[in-house]
Amino acid sequence: MVLLPEIAQTVAAVRAQKPLIHHLTNYVTANDSANITLAFGASPVMASAPDEATAMVAMAAALVLNLGTLSPDAVDTMVAAGRRAGELGIPVVLDPVGAGGTPPRTAAAHRILREVPLAVVRGNAAEIAALAGRRAAIRGVDAAGAEADGEAIAAGLAQELGCVVAVTGPADIVAAAGRICRIANGHPWLAGVTGTGCMATSLIGCCCGSGAAPYVGAVAGLTVMGVAGELAHRALRPGEGIGTFRVRLFDAVFAMTPELVLRHGQIG
Amino acid sequence: MVLLPEIAQTVAAVRAQKPLIHHLTNYVTANDSANITLAFGASPVMASAPDEATAMVAMAAALVLNLGTLSPDAVDTMVAAGRRAGELGIPVVLDPVGAGGTPPRTAAAHRILREVPLAVVRGNAAEIAALAGRRAAIRGVDAAGAEADGEAIAAGLAQELGCVVAVTGPADIVAAAGRICRIANGHPWLAGVTGTGCMATSLIGCCCGSGAAPYVGAVAGLTVMGVAGELAHRALRPGEGIGTFRVRLFDAVFAMTPELVLRHGQIG
Amino acid sequence: MVLLPEIAQTVAAVRAQKPLIHHLTNYVTANDSANITLAFGASPVMASAPDEATAMVAMAAALVLNLGTLSPDAVDTMVAAGRRAGELGIPVVLDPVGAGGTPPRTAAAHRILREVPLAVVRGNAAEIAALAGRRAAIRGVDAAGAEADGEAIAAGLAQELGCVVAVTGPADIVAAAGRICRIANGHPWLAGVTGTGCMATSLIGCCCGSGAAPYVGAVAGLTVMGVAGELAHRALRPGEGIGTFRVRLFDAVFAMTPELVLRHGQIG
Repeated sequence: MVLLPEIAQTVAAVRAQKPLIHHLTNYVTANDSANITLAFGASPVMASAPDEATAMVAMAAALVLNLGTLSPDAVDTMVAAGRRAGELGIPVVLDPVGAGGTPPRTAAAHRILREVPLAVVRGNAAEIAALAGRRAAIRGVDAAGAEADGEAIAAGLAQELGCVVAVTGPADIVAAAGRICRIANGHPWLAGVTGTGCMATSLIGCCCGSGAAPYVGAVAGLTVMGVAGELAHRALRPGEGIGTFRVRLFDAVFAMTPELVLRHGQIG
Repeated sequence: MVLLPEIAQTVAAVRAQKPLIHHLTNYVTANDSANITLAFGASPVMASAPDEATAMVAMAAALVLNLGTLSPDAVDTMVAAGRRAGELGIPVVLDPVGAGGTPPRTAAAHRILREVPLAVVRGNAAEIAALAGRRAAIRGVDAAGAEADGEAIAAGLAQELGCVVAVTGPADIVAAAGRICRIANGHPWLAGVTGTGCMATSLIGCCCGSGAAPYVGAVAGLTVMGVAGELAHRALRPGEGIGTFRVRLFDAVFAMTPELVLRHGQIG
Repeated sequence: MVLLPEIAQTVAAVRAQKPLIHHLTNYVTANDSANITLAFGASPVMASAPDEATAMVAMAAALVLNLGTLSPDAVDTMVAAGRRAGELGIPVVLDPVGAGGTPPRTAAAHRILREVPLAVVRGNAAEIAALAGRRAAIRGVDAAGAEADGEAIAAGLAQELGCVVAVTGPADIVAAAGRICRIANGHPWLAGVTGTGCMATSLIGCCCGSGAAPYVGAVAGLTVMGVAGELAHRALRPGEGIGTFRVRLFDAVFAMTPELVLRHGQIG
């Protein structure tokens, strides 16, 4: 069981260390990933050119690989950068966006799972199910249905891969070999903003890049995102909708403190 | 003549069906297109890699092709995906961003017009004039002047192409063979935010992907965008400017209802 | 010494002329660059395909080259477009994002410095130091430390390159052969939003594209950004954070007037 104090400590560590988080990510949500990383107190960099992605790894505290709008070249670059991170002991967090949606996307995710030593994989229920070899309901890049057996799938995949598996949805699940927990934070509107999954992955990267063990880092990143979603919705004034909610989400991550995590985090 | 009740019904259908809208689009406004699609109640996906763009088409309810930052490869991908959509009976909506601005861009638009069966083409006056073979005043990717004969050009191009042609500007025009209408909604500040044209095209994609006939879908998408622009501006507080207007635009599309369309839509 | 009235006049010229500003830029902050350009009253275009980047130059009033997420192809395109701009007498503004961070990035910046006639180079202290051949503290693409000798480095580089050198940071510096000034405007939160450097470069492009001499254009662009940062922060309500600040920044540039520049600008 992860205790809230460890999560709070991780938030403090991100703010204190301002780790550099290297992203190889997609052009749809790259700006959001950069801004949420900054809002959380870390420093983002997105250097996706094949000839410099690997060079940048050596300067980073964590590497985030996000398959959002991947091209064949991009997968090669991700594998090279990920292997370099492994050699250097830098944690790698994978967001297998849309795995299960199309064959090349699923293949790319599986290739990274095989060839890159991962600290954490974070996906929605359909993506994680696809990685676990289950047929899952996915529409585009979004999970189409609740997964009743989400915990079992996450635990099994964590065992198989030897890394932490985080599944986001109405409740979030984080599984590692022999450990599992549920995070009950969040707000339904998070699913109404593009890139909140990518942003959650970036926050996990920030936590892992600040010295948290992968399991703690994954729980911490998702708790921060979930609490921020709740606070962002609570901050809305009458008549404000999803556009303003998205802005308040950055406000809430920016305002996140160890104390807020202790007060609002619901990890069980 | 399209009646407002058909438009209101289309808004209800989008909300009920949450269609998956596949976008092959540009890196400047992709995030906006994704978020406006979500705000309207549909589900966006942007899978632009050549090896999966076509595979994703089969899962989508509509395909949006946007030439914003096109590369030669991207045009090939768009043509392949568009032809596949045609085979499957999935409506394709084209946004010929900047057509007329540079020769390769105009050529790309013409190639798609020739090779892809289109449901709707949506552009500004200069882009549509360029597609119709007229010399038009375009600066970069924005129309530089009002087109006095916008209705005639739209009607002629619709006839020539055998699809619906939508022209956005101070007033919007939608033309099909034998039908034409004007939408008087909108707000001048919409031209002060990048990507509002792209977003309007995405909304048309959402409508066409929910079973609306192309003509109704085009009118519905532009009416929603126009009414949202009006409501977004009305929601501003003293001192708020174009940045807040952009946020409120997502709020307004998110809050759109059949009733709001019936109350505010001005189609003639 | 640049006098504030020249800066105010430049703001008025941008608003009056609405210059077309061509950007070859990165996918992380392209949307922000486009929206800040529009907010300032100019017109952005991002046509990065190799076969049209150069064609678009002829229509533009200024060209912005931004190395944010550069690929080898992109550098070739930038050089070709930049040389064409030089032939046509169109001012080119370079943002050497992350120069000094990785060898290919530094090499790309140096290649552009050699092969493209530049009006202005705008970077942070670490980037400018790297261009000047100094070892600098850079983390990813952000300067890691204050440069005590920023003025000397900027002045030396301006002399060496024969163009204007602008260094942004806690205080901004603009240097040309025989001229130097400091702009004391700005707000620390500007460093907490991704792309504010890119946006500042776009504003310089807007000013240079409206007829301002490069030195005046650089000072004007940075003064507008700095004053906007101050006004954006002042406009925040209790509880609002970095996400809202980012929105207010566009509001503030949108609301910028010659009078506001005269009242708030601190150039010395």
